[in-house]
Order: sequence, then C-alpha cells, then structure tokens
Amino acid sequence: MSRYWSDIVSTLRPYVAGEQPRIPGLVKLNTNENPYGPSPKALEAIGQAADDRLRLYPDPAATELREAIAARFGLTAEEVFVGNGSDEVLAHTFQALLKHDLPLLYPDVTYSFYPTYSLLYGIEAVEIPVDDKFQIRLADYDRPCGAIIIPNPNAPTGIGLPLAGIEALLAAHPDAVVVVDEAYVDFGGESAVPLISAHPNLLVIQTLSKSRSFAGLRVGFALGHRDLIEALVRVKDSFNSYPLDCLAQLAATAAIKDDAWFDACRGKIIATRESLVRELQALDFEVLPSQANFVFARHQSQPGAALQAALRERHVLVRQFAKPRISDFLRISIGTDEECTRLISALKEILPA
Amino acid sequence: MSRYWSDIVSTLRPYVAGEQPRIPGLVKLNTNENPYGPSPKALEAIGQAADDRLRLYPDPAATELREAIAARFGLTAEEVFVGNGSDEVLAHTFQALLKHDLPLLYPDVTYSFYPTYSLLYGIEAVEIPVDDKFQIRLADYDRPCGAIIIPNPNAPTGIGLPLAGIEALLAAHPDAVVVVDEAYVDFGGESAVPLISAHPNLLVIQTLSKSRSFAGLRVGFALGHRDLIEALVRVKDSFNSYPLDCLAQLAATAAIKDDAWFDACRGKIIATRESLVRELQALDFEVLPSQANFVFARHQSQPGAALQAALRERHVLVRQFAKPRISDFLRISIGTDEECTRLISALKEILPA
Repeated sequence: MSRYWSDIVSTLRPYVAGEQPRIPGLVKLNTNENPYGPSPKALEAIGQAADDRLRLYPDPAATELREAIAARFGLTAEEVFVGNGSDEVLAHTFQALLKHDLPLLYPDVTYSFYPTYSLLYGIEAVEIPVDDKFQIRLADYDRPCGAIIIPNPNAPTGIGLPLAGIEALLAAHPDAVVVVDEAYVDFGGESAVPLISAHPNLLVIQTLSKSRSFAGLRVGFALGHRDLIEALVRVKDSFNSYPLDCLAQLAATAAIKDDAWFDACRGKIIATRESLVRELQALDFEVLPSQANFVFARHQSQPGAALQAALRERHVLVRQFAKPRISDFLRISIGTDEECTRLISALKEILPA
Repeated sequence: MSRYWSDIVSTLRPYVAGEQPRIPGLVKLNTNENPYGPSPKALEAIGQAADDRLRLYPDPAATELREAIAARFGLTAEEVFVGNGSDEVLAHTFQALLKHDLPLLYPDVTYSFYPTYSLLYGIEAVEIPVDDKFQIRLADYDRPCGAIIIPNPNAPTGIGLPLAGIEALLAAHPDAVVVVDEAYVDFGGESAVPLISAHPNLLVIQTLSKSRSFAGLRVGFALGHRDLIEALVRVKDSFNSYPLDCLAQLAATAAIKDDAWFDACRGKIIATRESLVRELQALDFEVLPSQANFVFARHQSQPGAALQAALRERHVLVRQFAKPRISDFLRISIGTDEECTRLISALKEILPA
C-alpha cells in the first residue's frame, strides 16, 4: 500500500472476473456469454450511428432506452434505471438502497461481487447458507434485516426460486428493500417484475449481457417503484452523469425491441442445456437443476480444480471457484451444440474409462 | 425521501449537467463539445467491430487502449488507468486517493462536480478562493492538506497555470496527492505529464470528450505513478470490472493514435477562439484569458442570466452558472467559425446599440 491511498483502498477485496483470453479456436464456456450474436437490428443501429454525432454528449437520462425497457415490461420510464452493465447498477444499488442499521442478507453461495460491494460501501452483511441441495431456503431470511439481495436464478448454481416464494419474502419484509438480481432469468426462470406494482420495496435488476448477447456493450437496468429509482439516479448523478455512451443507448434500445431474435436465441440455449445435462449425467456428473445459461456440475470422483485444468489443456475454458462447499463444481456456460460436443469429447478423454 | 434509502442518499447534491436537447439547427455552445467530428479512423474501427463479437465481454483491463495511451505519453501501461469518461475516473480518484484526515483543497470557482464527489465519499474539502482576476494563486495552497485537485486550465474560467507552478506545488506537498485535471489542456495549456516521473504524488486526468471529439463515447484516463494507478484499479474492480465496452476501447485506441486529426481539429478551435475573443471584446465583454475550448465572458452592463435566456430564444445555447462571483459570466464553447458568427449576430440583436 501507499501513503497516498485513502484508508479504504487497502481494505478492499476486488472482484476477480473470469479470464478473457483472445485465443482463436478456444471453446470459451467460462463467463456465461451467449454463443449467438446480438440482434442484427441492434448491430445495424451501431453502424448507422458511428459518425460525427459522437462528438456530442449522450442523453444523460437515456430516455429512449428507458422508454423502450418500460414498454417491454409494462412499466413507466420513471420505474426504470439504466447503467453501465448490471454490475454498475448493482454497485449503485448497494450504496443507495442496501446500507442500513440492520444487516443486509444474501446467500453464502451466490454472485461473488456482493461481498466486494459490501466492503466498498461499509455495509454489514450476513450470509445465509443455502441448504444441502444448494437451494435458497426463503424461511431462513425471516430475521431482522435492513435489506435482502437474492439472484434468481441463483449464480453459480443456476437454481431458480418460484415467484410465490419471492412474493412471500416481499410481504414478510415490508420495511426492507428486496433486490432480485435476474441476470439469468430469461433462460427459464420466473421474473418478479409483475410484483413491482404491489410491492414498493422490490427492485429487479436485469442485464443485456446474457440473454441479449451484449456482454461487450455494457448495459444493465433496474426496475422498481419510482422512489427506489430516484435513489439510484441521485447516486448516479453524484458519480457520473453520462454512464451510457450513444452507441450503447441506441443498440440496447434496438435489442430490447427485437423479441423475435431474443426468443430464438434463448430457445436454442435452453434446448442445448437440456441435452448437455443428460450427457454430463451420463459421465457421472451431478448437475444442479439449472434455469440459467450455465450448469453447475460436480463429478462423483474427480476434483473440480483438476478437471478445469485438464479441460484448459484441451482448449476448453470453464469456471471453477476455490471456495468452501463448491470447489468441486464446474460452472459451464451453455455454448452452441458444437461447443458442448467438444466439451463432452474432452471430458471423455480426461475421465477414467 | 423514502424509508428504503440508505442514509447517504438524502445528503447528496447531484451534479447538474448542461442540457442536451436534440433540436436540429441549434447553435449548441453550452457543454464544451468539439464542433468537429472524431477521427475517421476511429469511426471506421467502430463500424468494423459492430458484429457478433459483441456477445463477448470486453477486456476488463483495456490493455490495448492503455498501451496506446502509454505510448503517446512516454509512459508504461502500468502508469495508465482508463474509465467510463473522466467523470468516472474522477469519482474513483476521489474515493481512492483524496480522502484523508487532513482536508482536500480545490478552488472555489472550479468544476462543480468536485463538491458533489466530496459529499458522495464523505471527504472534508476546503475551497480556496481564486483571486480577483479569477486566477488560482498557488501560494494559497501552502497549508496542511490531505490532497489537492486543480483543473489546468481551470473550468469554467479557462485560465491556465504555468508548469513551473504545478512543479512547485508538487514539491511543496510531497506527502499529498496532487491531481491535475487536464480535461481542456490540449487547447493551449501546458500538460503536467512530463512531471510524473519525478513526482510519485502527481496524478494527471484527461478525457477524450473534448480534444478527441468523443463526448458520445465516454472515455477518460488517469496518468501517474503505478502505486496511484493501483489504488484506482482496486476501487474499479470493487465497483465494475468492465467499465469500457468493446467499441469504446477500439475507437479510443484509434483516436489516440490519430495525431494528425487531433492537431488539425484543435488548431482550428484555437484559431476560432482567438477571433471570438476579439469579437466579444468589441461588444463590451470582459473575456478571461482562455487556454480551453471555451471562453468565460461577462458583459459590462447586461446580467448573465438574462443574456443566456435571450440567446436561448434565438436558438443559441451557452451556459451560465447561478453561483457566487460568476453569475454574470457566460461560458461559451468554441464552435465552428459559422456557429460563433451566429452567436455574435444574436448578441448584436440582444445588446443595446
């Protein structure tokens, strides 16, 4: 550390993202990217906007994009907040809505950025263990708290919660904000968006990185009561007036409107996931029930870290977490059918006959 | 306010950006945008990258961009930090480097985001008054402090500081970080970058929004000793792993390399500024000496707010700040020669003969 640092810097535990090597021919199943490209209409929008107008600042309120998102979800633009990827939306949410006298609750097995945000903003957090089947038991959240954040489906397990459970949680905690992080909801989960009108304490966060194939564009959004959105806007306007560039705003607007492309891509991914699950099970993997664009799988005899390393030698990237309870699991993103076939072939080479 | 907000939210004073209306035919001289478009090579890079690769996450470290910036300034990539506009870079800088037991110092007349950041991060700040000529007097900074941030040239005055002054400030405060915010330096100021090698307490911040004509792309950067950069990286990786999308990284890299375009555009702007200054003086404006792509000018008899409103009626936007000491000034961005001629014509209509 350096004498020039603010005190907080040496206390941080920065998030470590999955590696992003640029090696041609790699089967890259480690960061939950969509194997299919973004909406062609969105790509066309970028091409048409790459001109001298980029000398001008973007709309700081991203009005057209917020209106398009609102229209898609049956909300008003005042119930929509957009940011530079759902990670930025989450960061602002932690600062604006999740810091209270009572602790924040989230699962022990979950998105590993949550503890990082909690440290960054000095939020006291309590991790609620998932059960032996790696499921979130909502009854365990029946305790005093300032706020709750739960991914649905959860990551890296892929396990989804039924909407009735989320609704009961909202009703049980009318004084606490409940954030449902729906980064993966479009691959078979049940979205909590229909509960927003009845629950002013609900914030739903989604991203264009997964189901809209735009990880490279950095757009995420939050949906909820306008009072919650106002808190996010205040923090955003104290941090960066213009988080979304002109191209991202236009392309995201076109992508949100292209339901046909969206449905076709996620349909293919769900179908590939179901066949991959069967093939992994045939190779003696335990596969948690996934509603996401990845599966979380553990071999009955081979350690996770060794399997990941052996796959990497065969140019197949998957993610493994050196963490309690889950270190023997592989998180495998759903690729194309061909990529999943290459994964299975590599596993057959690696695993004892 | 709402019971769901974290305490900090109701204490914030969000920054108010200049308006961004999308009205055709407007002479828009209110937000210091470049009147000329970005490098054609950079626009071409965007067109060539708007394809299926956007399904993949960007390089979280923006390696190629950081290398291009390092090469341009004679530094190493470890001495370069990039972010989503220099506002995001500034926000991380306030959190990572400017919060100490002793106060942060900055001018009273300066970029109005600084007090906003100080509130956001709980930083005690002391505003040091500029003198009667609106000049920063560096001798006034000779007092105990945790850190100093000074724009050079200053905004909204446009007045620059000589490099020898910055060097003396760095030497006088070896235990304090000194941030030089050089958003406007390319229009005639003296950059402090050559001082980096001798001063581990110096951080220089620049942006592609002004002299590179890329306000719509959102890219800014910080240059300094690797220990300072490491603090920024730690905060960034605790906030958002991927702040710069793929298109922004590619286009910014191409823009940084296109010195010919850069020199041609800034040369035209400097020439236009000098003739605009003469025309404003002929209309009885006091014009502060500007090294930026704007001028700060006060009419000898007409109040600033009334002039701004009258210009707006004539479809000419300039910025006026309802703040102590400067409320009678107009901040006028340097447009094309034609836009500046339209401004002068409108002023001739408005001002008493």
